Amino acid sequence: MRTIGVLGGMGPAATLDFYGRLIDLLGAGSDEQHPPCLLNSATQIPDRTNHIVGVGPDPTPALVEGVMVLEAGGADFIAIPCNTAHAYLEAMREAVGIPVLDMIAAAVAAVRRDVPDARQIGILATTGTLTTGLYDRLLREAGSEPLHPKEADQASVMEAIHSIKAGNIGPDERLERTAMTLVDLGARAIIMGCTEIPLGLDTERLPVKVVDATQALAEMTLSLALEELGFDDVPVGLLPESSPET
Amino acid sequence: MRTIGVLGGMGPAATLDFYGRLIDLLGAGSDEQHPPCLLNSATQIPDRTNHIVGVGPDPTPALVEGVMVLEAGGADFIAIPCNTAHAYLEAMREAVGIPVLDMIAAAVAAVRRDVPDARQIGILATTGTLTTGLYDRLLREAGSEPLHPKEADQASVMEAIHSIKAGNIGPDERLERTAMTLVDLGARAIIMGCTEIPLGLDTERLPVKVVDATQALAEMTLSLALEELGFDDVPVGLLPESSPET
Repeated sequence: MRTIGVLGGMGPAATLDFYGRLIDLLGAGSDEQHPPCLLNSATQIPDRTNHIVGVGPDPTPALVEGVMVLEAGGADFIAIPCNTAHAYLEAMREAVGIPVLDMIAAAVAAVRRDVPDARQIGILATTGTLTTGLYDRLLREAGSEPLHPKEADQASVMEAIHSIKAGNIGPDERLERTAMTLVDLGARAIIMGCTEIPLGLDTERLPVKVVDATQALAEMTLSLALEELGFDDVPVGLLPESSPET
Repeated sequence: MRTIGVLGGMGPAATLDFYGRLIDLLGAGSDEQHPPCLLNSATQIPDRTNHIVGVGPDPTPALVEGVMVLEAGGADFIAIPCNTAHAYLEAMREAVGIPVLDMIAAAVAAVRRDVPDARQIGILATTGTLTTGLYDRLLREAGSEPLHPKEADQASVMEAIHSIKAGNIGPDERLERTAMTLVDLGARAIIMGCTEIPLGLDTERLPVKVVDATQALAEMTLSLALEELGFDDVPVGLLPESSPET
């Protein structure tokens, strides 16, 4: 088995959720049947959205240090359950010699798999993720049209995300309402493109398919750890060109 | 804040439970208000009980490697949410220059705090933990009398622990029944002295106070991380004599 490296803490509850999914996805087994996992809950990384919108310090040095700790500790590859942190993916990839998965690409691959015919795709994500266009570019390359919430709705999404980060786990009306505005705008699927959102959105109440970036990353991570997939099998865009042959 | 090191994976669900308690104990806050945590889910460590009862390989080298990874990664101290692994505590302490907390001593301190007048204390733990007498010595030093389940009941406790490790989270009748046999033998409190047991015992159904070793370790860990406690403030027995002054 490969040793999983997880750069987390953005936020801690989302990291807990991600690790729980790795355990649940494996299903029954003894301790030893679970892949080893080194998890760096690096909670002191400066807020990603604040930097992207120009009101906070650059998180790049802390993110780079975070992945270097994982490589030094024996991780064979790295997953980062924070969509917004992927704005800094290239800097992290350059800092280590092991593959760093691309959660955004994993989520868009799940969109293509789960809702191949949906053209307009709504995105629930941080303002940082939306500002950088992380999802927009890949969705357009896949032939889809990304839909963002209107400004006032996006402000309420950020309020909900901060509330979840502050410990308020459970359905948040602001997320459901904003998802419905995206459906009203024509979205035929919704991406949960922030790792706090699955902790605050009751997807059963929405009339469209919801694609969960956390789950897409967890599935990819476990398949690589169990060596069901080689790094070469991972869809294009998930890994840097320099990733090791396996 | 101090960086927490967690040597986990024994098993993964118990580690998830422990990390969740650290998050819950802190309560509301932004990402940055949570202490950083490096978590080594070292699932490949050979089974502790199997070694103690003489039917499996020695886990000491893997445990020592596990704590060394945490020290090298920047942890300021280490918590190990696996009671049975504490049979190897001295070897782990000797391998690193940072404090390694003693979960057993933390649990016995919680017994003294929560049920100061209870003389007979029942222990639900692995056969490995019971065989090594980890709890017995400290309980007797505290003036209590440890009670172990009878052999057939202990076999059913191990079945329940393996079932929980295999993913069957939720009340397990075997644990409740064995806890009741300890009460019938005179126990006025029960220690959940294995990190799987809180995942399978409905403590509300027992007529005596239940002390949870996982919670005792989590409280100690968070207080140290938040620098509410110095290493010198930790009760005697929780730290090696060589622990750093703070």
